[in-house]
Formats: sequence, C-alpha cells, structure tokens
Amino acid sequence: MKQYVIGIDFGTLSGRCLLMDAHTGEEVAESVVEYPHAVMDERLPTGEPLPPSFALQHPKDYLEVLSVGIGKVLAKGGVIPDDVVGIGIDFTACTLLPIDEKGIPLCFHDSFKNEKHAYVKLWKHHGAQAFADRLVALAKERREPWLPAFGGKVSCEWALPKIMEILHEAPKVYDAAYRFTEAADWLSLLLTGEETHSAMFAGYKWLWTAEGGYPSNDFLTALDPRLDGLVGTKVSPVVTPMDAVAGRLNEEGAALTGLPVGTPLSLPMIDGHAAMPALNVTRRGQSMLILGTSACHMLNETVRQDVEGICGYVKDGVIPGIYTYEAGQSGMGDIYGWFVDHMVPVEYTQEAEARGMSVHALLTEKATTLSVGESGLLALDWWNGNRSILVNASLSGMILGLTLSTKPEEIYRTLLEATAFGLRVIFERYEENGLAVRDICAAGGIAGKNPLMMQIYADVLNRPIAVAGTPQAGARGSAICASVAAGLYESITAAADHFARPHSRVYTPIKENVAAYDRLYREYKTLHDYFGTENMVMERLKGM
Amino acid sequence: MKQYVIGIDFGTLSGRCLLMDAHTGEEVAESVVEYPHAVMDERLPTGEPLPPSFALQHPKDYLEVLSVGIGKVLAKGGVIPDDVVGIGIDFTACTLLPIDEKGIPLCFHDSFKNEKHAYVKLWKHHGAQAFADRLVALAKERREPWLPAFGGKVSCEWALPKIMEILHEAPKVYDAAYRFTEAADWLSLLLTGEETHSAMFAGYKWLWTAEGGYPSNDFLTALDPRLDGLVGTKVSPVVTPMDAVAGRLNEEGAALTGLPVGTPLSLPMIDGHAAMPALNVTRRGQSMLILGTSACHMLNETVRQDVEGICGYVKDGVIPGIYTYEAGQSGMGDIYGWFVDHMVPVEYTQEAEARGMSVHALLTEKATTLSVGESGLLALDWWNGNRSILVNASLSGMILGLTLSTKPEEIYRTLLEATAFGLRVIFERYEENGLAVRDICAAGGIAGKNPLMMQIYADVLNRPIAVAGTPQAGARGSAICASVAAGLYESITAAADHFARPHSRVYTPIKENVAAYDRLYREYKTLHDYFGTENMVMERLKGM
Repeated sequence: MKQYVIGIDFGTLSGRCLLMDAHTGEEVAESVVEYPHAVMDERLPTGEPLPPSFALQHPKDYLEVLSVGIGKVLAKGGVIPDDVVGIGIDFTACTLLPIDEKGIPLCFHDSFKNEKHAYVKLWKHHGAQAFADRLVALAKERREPWLPAFGGKVSCEWALPKIMEILHEAPKVYDAAYRFTEAADWLSLLLTGEETHSAMFAGYKWLWTAEGGYPSNDFLTALDPRLDGLVGTKVSPVVTPMDAVAGRLNEEGAALTGLPVGTPLSLPMIDGHAAMPALNVTRRGQSMLILGTSACHMLNETVRQDVEGICGYVKDGVIPGIYTYEAGQSGMGDIYGWFVDHMVPVEYTQEAEARGMSVHALLTEKATTLSVGESGLLALDWWNGNRSILVNASLSGMILGLTLSTKPEEIYRTLLEATAFGLRVIFERYEENGLAVRDICAAGGIAGKNPLMMQIYADVLNRPIAVAGTPQAGARGSAICASVAAGLYESITAAADHFARPHSRVYTPIKENVAAYDRLYREYKTLHDYFGTENMVMERLKGM
Repeated sequence: MKQYVIGIDFGTLSGRCLLMDAHTGEEVAESVVEYPHAVMDERLPTGEPLPPSFALQHPKDYLEVLSVGIGKVLAKGGVIPDDVVGIGIDFTACTLLPIDEKGIPLCFHDSFKNEKHAYVKLWKHHGAQAFADRLVALAKERREPWLPAFGGKVSCEWALPKIMEILHEAPKVYDAAYRFTEAADWLSLLLTGEETHSAMFAGYKWLWTAEGGYPSNDFLTALDPRLDGLVGTKVSPVVTPMDAVAGRLNEEGAALTGLPVGTPLSLPMIDGHAAMPALNVTRRGQSMLILGTSACHMLNETVRQDVEGICGYVKDGVIPGIYTYEAGQSGMGDIYGWFVDHMVPVEYTQEAEARGMSVHALLTEKATTLSVGESGLLALDWWNGNRSILVNASLSGMILGLTLSTKPEEIYRTLLEATAFGLRVIFERYEENGLAVRDICAAGGIAGKNPLMMQIYADVLNRPIAVAGTPQAGARGSAICASVAAGLYESITAAADHFARPHSRVYTPIKENVAAYDRLYREYKTLHDYFGTENMVMERLKGM
C-alpha cells in the first residue's frame, strides 16, 4: 500500500499543497489556492480604508486552502484520503491574529468586522514601527538581557510591537483577545484542538530565548501597565521544541480537510525555515542561504555561542538538538531592483525590450563579460541598512571608483559583489567565534535565476555553493516533517536524509577570481569597518 | 571720430570677431567663421586616416577667420578699416604647430601634407600621453625644481609632450621644424613679422617659470639626447610679460586682414584667461571661475606664494604685475553629463521629452525642491580624478548615503554640491596660505544656465557670486587688450575698469543653507582627506 503526506505552504498571496509519496519522496501533485482577499492594504472587506503602512489578511482565506487545496491535490494525484498518513504546514511569520476563547478570530465577530486591528496582521504589516522603536529604547535603557540575543534590535514585523499596536490603537480588541497567535498556530488549534507554540516562532519572532523565556512581566509593565500578565494569558506560556507532533485531526479538522480523524499534524514552521529539512540542511556546519529581496542565512551548530552582530540563535528552533543561528542582509534583490528601477538609461530599457528580456537579464549578460576588478568599482551594500554584523539600520549604500566611463552593467555587477562581500563578513564572524561553515546550500528566487551572482558568491566565499534542487522547498519541508509526525522516520534529520534530492547546480570557485576577490574583499572590509564603526557619517547624514 | 577695436577669439570649431567701440565698449558687431576642416580626428585632408587619440587642425582655417571674419564684422558694423585702432587675439592652448624659417607651417609643404605630425595639434589632442608620463617620471626621479610649480603633474595637452611625440613619431618633421609655436603666436608672427611668446602661454602651457625659465637642457637631453638645444633653437627662448604689444600689422598682415599697415596687435592670450580683463577680474583678491565640462579657477594676487596642490601661478601671466594663480577641477559639467547619459531612467527621459525640456533641466527642476541635506547623500567629485588640491588623476568618484528610496534628482543635486565642496577645498587652501579670495566672478557655460548650481556654490562658499554679464568674454577680453595696444588706456587693468559691465546676476548666500552646508562640508572634507591621503583604495582599484 502506498502512503502519502501533504505539505502546505502558506505564502503571502496563496497557499500551496504538495502531495508527496511518504516513502519515495516523489512529488505526486501540487495545488495552489490564491487567497480571495490577497493582501488587504487599501481597505477592509467592509470598505473601511486602511492607513498606508497596513498589510492585513483575512483568516477565512487560509481555510479555503485547507478545504479546496487539499481536495484538489488529492484529486490531481488520484490518491484517496485514507492513504494520507500525515500533514504539515509552514506559514509566513510573524503573521498574527487575535482569537477568542473558542479559537475564533475576532474579525469573524460581527462587532469587530469593521475593526482593522481585529484582522490578521501579515508579516510585512509595518504599522507598528513606533512601538518597536519604543520597545527597543526601553530595553536598551534597562539593559534587558535578551536584547543582545536579537542583535540589539527588534523588528516592527515581530509579535510584541504588533500586540502593542493593538493595545494602543484598539484597546477593545486587546481586551477581547483570549490569545494572540501566529496564523500557523491558529490553524493547528483549529485542526487538532491542541494549542501549539514552537521554539521556532517564539525564538525567531516573539523575543523568546531558550535560556530566559519571554521578556519579564516587569519589563512588559514598564512598557505599558496594561501589558501586565500578558505572557500566560493572551500569549501562550508553553513553548515546545521542534520535534513534537502538533496533534491529530479532530472532527472539525477532518471535516475541513476531508482527511481521516486522527491524521497527525506536524508542528507548524516558519516558511523560510521549513526549507531546511527539504534541502537537507540539518547538521552541524551546514548553512542555507535564502536569497531574495533581502537575504536570510541559517547555520546549524551543536554548540551555543554568542556571536556579536548576528540576528540570534534558537536551540531546537528548526532541528531538535541543533542551535540554528540566523543572520541576515537587509538588502539584496531589492538593491538590484532599485538600480534597475531608478538608474538604468533608456537605451538599456529599449534594448531589453527589443530583445524580449528583462533589464536584469540584460545587465547580467553585459556584466558577465567583465573580469573581476575591471571596473575599478567597489560598493557597500547597505541601501536598506545593515542587519548583520553591524546591526545598524542607519547605515546606507556607497559606490566608489566611479569615472566618466563607468557603465550601468559595471555598477550592477559591483552591487552583486557588494552583497557577496557582506555575506563573507558574516561568515568570517562565525569563524572568529569558532563556528565553522562547511556546506552552503542556496535557495530563494535569485539563487536559481542569476548564475553570475551565484558564481560571484562562490568566488567571494571561496566555497562551492549548491543550489537547491527543489523549487517548492517550503511545502516539501512541511511534507517531510509530516512524514516524521506519521512515525515513518525517527527524526527530522533522518527524514531529511531519506528525502534528500540532488542539487540543481553546484558553483565551484574559480581560482583566479578567488584571488582577485580576496584583494577586493580586503578593501571592502576596510571600508566596512571605517563607515560601520569609525566614521559614522552615514548616520549623521540620515539625521540631518 | 569714432574709434574701434577688434577682438578675435579662436575657439575649437570657429573663430569669432567682435567689433567694439574703443571708447564706449559697445559691442557693435560680431561675426563667426566656422573652420572648414573643423577638428580633424578621423583623417587628414589627403584622406590619410588618424589614430583615435588624435585631434588636429588645419592652419589655413585660422587665416580664413582673419580674411573673411574681419571683413564681415566691419561690413556688419558699417565701420571702415581706417577707424580700427587695434586688434587682439585669443586662442585655445596649447595648440601647437611646427613652422619653417619663413614662418610657413610644415603642413603647407607638399612633402609633409600627408604627414599627420606636421599639422596643428589641437589642445585636446591626446596622442602624447605616453610622453607626458615619461616626462613626469623623469622629472620626479630627478626632483626637477619646476615640477612642484605645476602641481607635480604635466598634462599630455601641454607643449613639451606634444614636441616629444613629434620627435619620436616623425623625426623628419622634428628636424624640419625651425620653431614649434602656439597657433596664436604663429598668427602674430604672420601679421606683424614679430615673433611672440608670452608669459601666459609659456607659464601655463610650456613648463616655464618666471624664476627658473624653461626646464634645463640637462633635463631635456636626459629625456632624449635629440632634444639637446631645443630651447633657443626650435623653441623661442624669449618670454615676454603680458603688457607688451605684439607688433604692428606689416604688409602681409594688412593684406590678410584688410586693416591699415601699422595697426597695433596686442599680445595673444589663452582663450580662458582672456576673459579676465573682460570680466574686470584684474586686481588682488579677485577670482574668476570658468565653469564648463571641467572648471578652471583663477585668482589674482600681488605676492608669490607656493600653494601646494594648485596648478601653479604665473607672474605677469595675465595682468602685468599680478601673480595669477590657477587651480582646476578636472570634472564638473561632464560629471553631470555622465549622470544624465548613463544613470537616468526612461520615465525621466520621457517626461523631459513630453515637456520639451532637457533632462538636465528636468533634474534641476526636481532637485530645486529638495532642501539641503534632505537626501542624506554625499559625493566626492573625482569622476575624472582630482586636479587640485590632491593632484591625483587616479582618484575616482564616490556616492554615499544611498537608500532604496534614493531618486535620480537627489543624486544629481549631490553631484552639484560635491563640485562646490571641491571648490571650497581649493579656496580654503588659498586662505591657509594667506591668499584671500575676496570677489568671485563666474563665467562659462554652466554659470549662466543653472541657477540651482550657482545658488549652491554661493551657499557652500558663503560668498556672493557674480555671474559674468558678457557672453563673449574671450573676444571682449581681446578687444580690451587691443585698446591698450592702441594706446588708449595706460594698462589692461585701467581698460578693464573702463569697460567693466554689470553682472547678469549676483547669487547671495542663503543663511540657513550656509549653516547646513557647513555641516555637510565638514563630512566632505573628512572623506576628501581619508580617500585622498589615508586610504588609497581608489588608486589600488584603478591599478587592478
């Protein structure tokens, strides 16, 4: 008898179900359900207009993925529900909503359907920036012990600023909320009746550390007296490691999904992190680069080691028994995008159009013919600040070496190189702290699309870089965890090994480029330190 | 009886004759004669092709300006030749040609008409770069005392590299040359029979200093034994101060110009420098900025003072009794031009087209609405190296403060500001050396065209800047000197006073901008010193 698992990846605009053979790993079928309300950033379903920094979602949309998407993928794959032995989900985060005691989203109540703060605040909702600033300022002032674990910084996209925003802007919603929960955890509650809150979400998005738990009630009440008792009431105090099973489908869950009662659900994951089992990045020394508009870098270690300037680490945050360190680059693809949008002359736009290619592809083609260092250019990749190692949002981008004959493709290549240098700084910081980066696996939009960039990364880091062979790494990671929840494999690591797929391509360092980039990197590092620590001109300019 | 003078400005593509009332200064008429051969940069008149760095002219073309242009301007003005009491000429420099013993250009000889090195090497002929490099290297090695007077640098556009090029590439032309001469001096020889070579040309273009004369024969023979005896044979050893009259029209000169025998000709001038009497910049503390693709700044002083990093100074070089200091910025309008050509997106090109304006004008319009420091950007204006104060052609441009929301007009404004800061560095260097800049008069293409830039200059320098009221400053300066040669005024200074015209506009510093620019300039200066003297990364990148 064949057995199958289903991994469901809840993205920003749609949910994707992947039906996978639980033994061979074959991807049998896939279905995608677009969210009917997509991202609500202009108005609520009731017509109520939204402020500019808002990005909300409607929880109903997720339910459609479960009911329609699962049915569809089973039909496409010709598989009967009884042959599905487990499901797993991954979700954007922190994507937060308030629910009542019965687990019903407050926005489902008639009394709140016109209240924007009762809806799901999507990860990229930026309405809470002022609260994040206030939170960081107080934490710094009080020298809160947990702050360094998050690189001294709290993103406005994380849970606590979003909760503060609700408290301040819509106290009635705050009062009515039985729990604030990740959308992912709301789904496992709905499907199994069990409340979940994993170390992954808590550690990476809710200011929780394995050592100290959540920020103290003392801190929270200093922030706002009304937050007294938040953890343990409106925030679940229980945090579980990643190896736990979330639960088994109850009657409601079975009705919603069309799967049998008792089907196990693995613990929900953050979408980016879910890629790690899919790419078999589960062991010490293995790292995964997710290269998109910005970049997120994960590194597995068996030891705990404070590393100044990274985003932090969470024990059992992805793989049980493993400390997964996270560092990030706050600008990557969006820097190249800025250049293409604002700095490319009409001749290039026309040439790309005439040849039926994107401007990115045209610039990449032209940049590929350049040799390392030929342009004489060097850049600092801080267009969107520096998330790691300097951890300073007030830093800004720099280009140096410009001449009257500098061409757009030369600058474009220099921007690719600059982000590669930025990553090398992170890797060198790991190494200085005794953490070794042995294998590199790259995923994310850019990794598969831009061979020039990937070769530059391999040359700058002087390490082979394997590009993921799985385009749907999130859903596949969830499916793999589902197979563990089903009891077919003894651990995520074992399952990841079992289902490992060949890489789509491996970029190997080119010796002469490595040497040339070594010289360029030394120049980069000098300027990195000068503008990052000695001459804070960028900060002062932003302050003017 | 009315009396008139004629000033003739020999530019790069045409010669312009200005007929001026010798008493009122009224500009009675103007004529322009385009050079039939224009700039020969692809082939000789014989069809002989030219290398890429060549920029030659045909001396015949200048004669047409004299014969056709003078006749035309007299006819237009309704003035008879007998009422012309003096003529003056200014010319591009170093624009060099070899002539025979009778003053005939070698390229007029049948035997040389197919020889490119027998023609006029225009100021912007760049075929002699290798010889300039060799010359500087040897001068540095030998610690030649004259090298510092030229900022440690010799341009390939100057006379000696061009002569070396002829010696090396066409020894027969070198051997046949009786003299190498500026085109301007060839014309005065032709018109008056007198050989001229003024401190202006010698000092600014021929490595001559008032104190030490030309480079020694010892140096020249070390450079190439065949240069033995160059000064005194093929180069006129006599250098005259600027107050001398060149001579009076002889029979040939009268025949060529249609003016009476005996009409006085003032000493020829370099075109840029000729603007100084026209703009009445003749006294101590007065400075003239010529703002074009690059920029040239003149400052008059009564004392001699070595100033490290400027181009140099020449006593009597423009105004008798005055040391005129020269400094330069090797990139100005061409930096803005680079940006417009290479870095402006299609929407801007289309908007400018739709509104019937240039992209420069559109960017200026958008940049004008920005307040000082608003963009958070800062640039170093070294796209074409730094001519003064750092005197380093290997420096390059830098932009800092870039973010994902940086717009083209913000960068454009930052480039304007950067060149203004570059000028402030020069002015501060003068002041550190006890030379005071009291008045500033701006001329050149950009001065009249870009009010935003001129206001930025006034704000950055915290000084009023007057913009020249005379569009044809070169020809008018020549006409003024002609009136002195005619004996109507006792000195260039007196004539310049007499003929002074109101400025077209005076830009006055805006107090709050001055304060904000003071802060920005401090940041600029720190980076100027860091990249100019401490971290030579720009040089190393160019060397890669």
